[in-house]
Amino acid sequence: MTSVRAMFFDVFGTLVDWRSSVAREAQSVLAPLGHNLDWSAFADAWRHEYQPGMEEVRAGRIPFSKLDVLHRRNLERFIPRFGLRNLPDDVLHELTLAWHRLDAWPDVTAALRRLKKNFLLAPVSNGNISLMVDLARRNDFPWDAILGAEVAGDYKPKPRVYLAACEAFDLKPAQCMMVAAHSSDLAAAAACGLRTGHVARPNEHGPGTGETAPGVPVDVAGADLGELAKKLGE
Amino acid sequence: MTSVRAMFFDVFGTLVDWRSSVAREAQSVLAPLGHNLDWSAFADAWRHEYQPGMEEVRAGRIPFSKLDVLHRRNLERFIPRFGLRNLPDDVLHELTLAWHRLDAWPDVTAALRRLKKNFLLAPVSNGNISLMVDLARRNDFPWDAILGAEVAGDYKPKPRVYLAACEAFDLKPAQCMMVAAHSSDLAAAAACGLRTGHVARPNEHGPGTGETAPGVPVDVAGADLGELAKKLGE
Repeated sequence: MTSVRAMFFDVFGTLVDWRSSVAREAQSVLAPLGHNLDWSAFADAWRHEYQPGMEEVRAGRIPFSKLDVLHRRNLERFIPRFGLRNLPDDVLHELTLAWHRLDAWPDVTAALRRLKKNFLLAPVSNGNISLMVDLARRNDFPWDAILGAEVAGDYKPKPRVYLAACEAFDLKPAQCMMVAAHSSDLAAAAACGLRTGHVARPNEHGPGTGETAPGVPVDVAGADLGELAKKLGE
Repeated sequence: MTSVRAMFFDVFGTLVDWRSSVAREAQSVLAPLGHNLDWSAFADAWRHEYQPGMEEVRAGRIPFSKLDVLHRRNLERFIPRFGLRNLPDDVLHELTLAWHRLDAWPDVTAALRRLKKNFLLAPVSNGNISLMVDLARRNDFPWDAILGAEVAGDYKPKPRVYLAACEAFDLKPAQCMMVAAHSSDLAAAAACGLRTGHVARPNEHGPGTGETAPGVPVDVAGADLGELAKKLGE
């Protein structure tokens, strides 16, 4: 593990609590307009469109579009089920920016600051650059660079995204560790030759819904990012 | 000027003193091997190959290659004139990394920290991502993201580089200001619709060789980055 020089991070679910943040932001936009919804169900419905939206790009059916664009398209796809019709463009835009206002899980920022002493740090997320920048400003994430889908021009778990991140830092895959709360992300990174770290986020999709332990072999695992950092000696 | 949300920075010459840093680094690699050169002339000769090297990419004669690759190729092109032949690959590699170890002009880091309060900040340099990351670590540059040539896949002053930076931040060109010590860079940015800021670096290529004032119309100009920041109210 002493050869690891950079740590790459999944963001949605791993570093930030998208579900309660999107629920809160949707409520703050829509409640003043008289809408009263199950806000957690609203967040879940939006997230449910996430993989199918990216699959259009991964499969080559549409050109690469940044995640903000997919989030907006996905939003318009599911909101009729919540009885929301003919929302003005500015409301749809403001809702889409909910994903720029997600709060970190409480262990994250302090752990990243410790890891920064000995590792290069970057998000390798499917979120676009501006979204990652806004989350970093909001939560004090000390990134060295913003890597991930927009830099690679494709979406995880396509190998190009992990490999483009390694290349941006002039590192071999074995010198990079992907950290995520999702075993599928780690399996894809490991297949590219990266080291892997798992963080448990048992409540990602609501109480008792997330991974409590990795479902694939990993190099290190922690109950949270603080424990993972400690296991790496930080 | 109140509409400006992001500030983009040229790096070589504008933020960092490449000439004395490359001279120092070349000496530290080559002097122990028994070479005694005019180290400033060595740095100047290397820099002299800079624009022709990038022009190969800009003109489409070779695919995009990151600046580290061009620096290495340019190095091998000019060193025979200094009597250096058959240097081992690891020495050539270590020399190339001299460009990752450049020191900031003394006014830069404090000014960037002040600007960070109200603007998104990113380098929009022809340097590659890993080079920019190393310079940021060395000099405490507080970037929100690393933008520029490697993200755009082309070299300044091609319009794509400036426009890709604006797009990465979801901003219109008029919401972004390019800051540089070189009027040609600012003219190209202005042609893309960006605001422009000039910083005087009168000693960039040695005493009395750099621009003391902009040679094109700009929105703001400063004797150094601290003065430019002050003029922007920071």
